Amino acid sequence: MRTLDKQTIEDIASGAALLGSGGGGDPYIGKLMALQAIKKYGPVTMIDVDEVPDDAFIVPTALMGAPTVLIEKLSNGSECKRAFEAMEKYFGKKIYATMPIEAGGVNSMIPLAVAAQMKVPVIDVDGMGRAFPEIQMVTCHLHGIPSSPMVVTDEKGNVAVLDTISNNWSEKIARAMTVAQGGSVMVCIYPMTGKDIKQCGIRRIMSYSEEIGRAIRDSNKYDIPPVKQLLNKINGFELFKGKISDVLRETKGGFNSGTLKIDGLKDYRGENCEVNFQNENLVAKKGEKILATTPDLICLVDLENITPITTDSLKYGRRVLVIGLKCDDQWRTKKGIETVGPRHFGYDMDYIPIEKRMKGVDSYDL
Amino acid sequence: MRTLDKQTIEDIASGAALLGSGGGGDPYIGKLMALQAIKKYGPVTMIDVDEVPDDAFIVPTALMGAPTVLIEKLSNGSECKRAFEAMEKYFGKKIYATMPIEAGGVNSMIPLAVAAQMKVPVIDVDGMGRAFPEIQMVTCHLHGIPSSPMVVTDEKGNVAVLDTISNNWSEKIARAMTVAQGGSVMVCIYPMTGKDIKQCGIRRIMSYSEEIGRAIRDSNKYDIPPVKQLLNKINGFELFKGKISDVLRETKGGFNSGTLKIDGLKDYRGENCEVNFQNENLVAKKGEKILATTPDLICLVDLENITPITTDSLKYGRRVLVIGLKCDDQWRTKKGIETVGPRHFGYDMDYIPIEKRMKGVDSYDL
Repeated sequence: MRTLDKQTIEDIASGAALLGSGGGGDPYIGKLMALQAIKKYGPVTMIDVDEVPDDAFIVPTALMGAPTVLIEKLSNGSECKRAFEAMEKYFGKKIYATMPIEAGGVNSMIPLAVAAQMKVPVIDVDGMGRAFPEIQMVTCHLHGIPSSPMVVTDEKGNVAVLDTISNNWSEKIARAMTVAQGGSVMVCIYPMTGKDIKQCGIRRIMSYSEEIGRAIRDSNKYDIPPVKQLLNKINGFELFKGKISDVLRETKGGFNSGTLKIDGLKDYRGENCEVNFQNENLVAKKGEKILATTPDLICLVDLENITPITTDSLKYGRRVLVIGLKCDDQWRTKKGIETVGPRHFGYDMDYIPIEKRMKGVDSYDL
Repeated sequence: MRTLDKQTIEDIASGAALLGSGGGGDPYIGKLMALQAIKKYGPVTMIDVDEVPDDAFIVPTALMGAPTVLIEKLSNGSECKRAFEAMEKYFGKKIYATMPIEAGGVNSMIPLAVAAQMKVPVIDVDGMGRAFPEIQMVTCHLHGIPSSPMVVTDEKGNVAVLDTISNNWSEKIARAMTVAQGGSVMVCIYPMTGKDIKQCGIRRIMSYSEEIGRAIRDSNKYDIPPVKQLLNKINGFELFKGKISDVLRETKGGFNSGTLKIDGLKDYRGENCEVNFQNENLVAKKGEKILATTPDLICLVDLENITPITTDSLKYGRRVLVIGLKCDDQWRTKKGIETVGPRHFGYDMDYIPIEKRMKGVDSYDL
C-alpha cells in the first residue's frame, strides 16, 4: 500500500501510454484528470492485488470510445460518482476498490481520479497489460468473468445499467451507446471479487508503467543512448525507425481506425514501414514482411525524447521509433488468440510470437 | 373493468392499426402475440383510467424499432418478464398496471400480452391517440413526465435500465441500442403514477380502437358503402383514392422511411398523391397541394375491404383509400406542434389543422 504523489502519477501516465500501444488515450490529458481529482478530493492509495480480500467487491473504471474525441470532450468528474452510485445500487453493496481495465495514458489515470473522488483505493493491476479496443478483450473474459452488469455514463448526466448475455453483446450495445452519446462515455465494467482479480489480473502493471515512465524521464541522464536504454528496460524489439510520411485516419463506429506509413531513417533508409490501427496499433509491416501483430504490443515513441505517441497524435513528419513488445502469456492461449489475434481484426495472417518473428534480428529481449 | 375476449382483441388490433397511421405494427402479428399470451397465461382485464388509484405505479410497454423488422424478429415472451422485473427492482415497488404508449397493430397488443403474463390489468388509455416514431412524441412528454428510468430488453436476453437527462436523450440512446440489438427491442417506458396518466393520457383509446375494428369487420353488413360507413364512424376525411404506383423504402437508423406514390382512381383519375412516412405517414400531397400533415392522422385502408394498411405492407398495385383524421387536441398546442409538427420531421411547411385544409372539400367530419 502506498500513496501516489504527483511525480509517480506523471510517470505512470507516461509509461502506461507506451503500453497502450497507440491507444488508451493521451497521457497529458490523463494525468491532468487524475491530478485535478486528487487536488480536489485528496490523495489516492494504491494497493497490491494480494492486499485485496477474496470477497471484496471490485469495479474497474475506464473511458470507452475514440481517443480523438477525448481531447475535445473531457469528463466533468460527475460521471464517476453517478456510475459508482448506480453500480452500488444495482448490487446493493459498497465498492471496495477500483482498478484500470487497460494500460493507457487516460485509462490508467481514470481509476485514480475515480479513487480520489470515491475515496477507495486503486489496485495495482489491469485486465490487459496493454490497451485493446473492445470490451471482451480483457483477461477476465478469458476466465469467463462477465463484463456486465456494467454502467455507462456520460458528462451530460445520462446513466445506463446494462445486464447483457455475453461480453460481445456488452461491446455491441455499449459501443452503439458510445457513438450516440458523442463518441466517448465512462464505464464501470467487469464487476468482480478480489478472488477473481487474483486469478485473471495482470499484476503490478501500474508499478511497471511507473518504471517505464521513469526510464523515459531519465533517458538523458546516462551515457547509454535513450532508445537503447528504454529497449533494455522493457525488453523491447526495435522494429523500425523513420519519419511519418502518411496517416490515413477515420473515426468510425466509435473507433479511430487507420493506417500509418513511415519512411526509413538511419539503418532503415530506403525502406518503408506500415502500421494498421484500430485505436491501438495492430499490425506492423516492413515492405511485405510482417514485423509484429496483435496481441504483441506495437508501440511508437518519438525518436528524440522517446515519449510514447498515441494514434490520435500521429502527424506527418514526426520522427518515430517503432517498438515491439511481448504480450502477456494469457493472450497467447487459444482463447486469447481467438479474442485478440490478427484474424479477429480482419487480417488474414497467423499470430506468430514476436520473439519468433524477430529471430536473428538484433534484439533487446534480454 | 372488463375481461377481453378473442373477438374484442381482434377488433382492437384492427382498429388500432388504422389509428397507427401506417405505424405501430402489423395487426395480424399483434393479435397473435396477445392471443398466444392469453392462451398461455390466462385472460386480461382492461380497466378505465378512473379506476386507477392516484398513487398506483403504471408502466407502459411497447416494441420500439422498425415495423418491418418485427415481422421477422418476433418477441419470445421472456422480454416482458425481464423488463417488468428490472423496472420493479429499480423502483423497489410492484407495477400496478400496464398500458399502450401508442395505438397500433402491434403496440396496442404488446401491453395485453404483458398484462396476461405479468397478471396485471391493462388501462384503456395511451400516450398518443395514434402512433409516432420517437420516444419523446408522447403526451406525457408535453406534460413534463420523463420517459426514464426506462428498460430496454431484447429477445436474446439483454436488459438495460436507462436513466436519462431528457426524453430526447432517451430517444437517441435507446434508438442506437435498438439498431445494435437487431432493429427492434421491447421497452418499459414513461413510468408514472395513476395521477399522471389521468392528466396526460388519451382516454378510452382501446375501446375506440375496438369500435373502429368492429366497424371494419361489419362494413359489409349494411346498405351504406363500407368506405362511407367507416368515414362516418371515425369522422374522417377522404383524401384520395388510387392504386399504389411506387414505394420508395429504406430501413435506416432503426426506422422504416420512404415515399409512397398513388395514381388516382374513380373521382381522382388523372391525379397523383404522394405520402411521406417515417414508420408513420407524415405528409400527404395531391400534386403540389398539401392534403394533411402530422400530427393529424394520415391512414391508408384497402379500397375493397377497408382494412388498414401499415407502411411495412405497402405494395405496388394495391388499391387504397387515403383517410385524414383530426389528432388529439394535445398535439395542437405549441409544444405539441414543436414535438411532432411537420418541421420537426424536416418538412418546410406549417401545421394547418386538417379541417381547415379540407374546408370546402367534401367531408365526413360530422
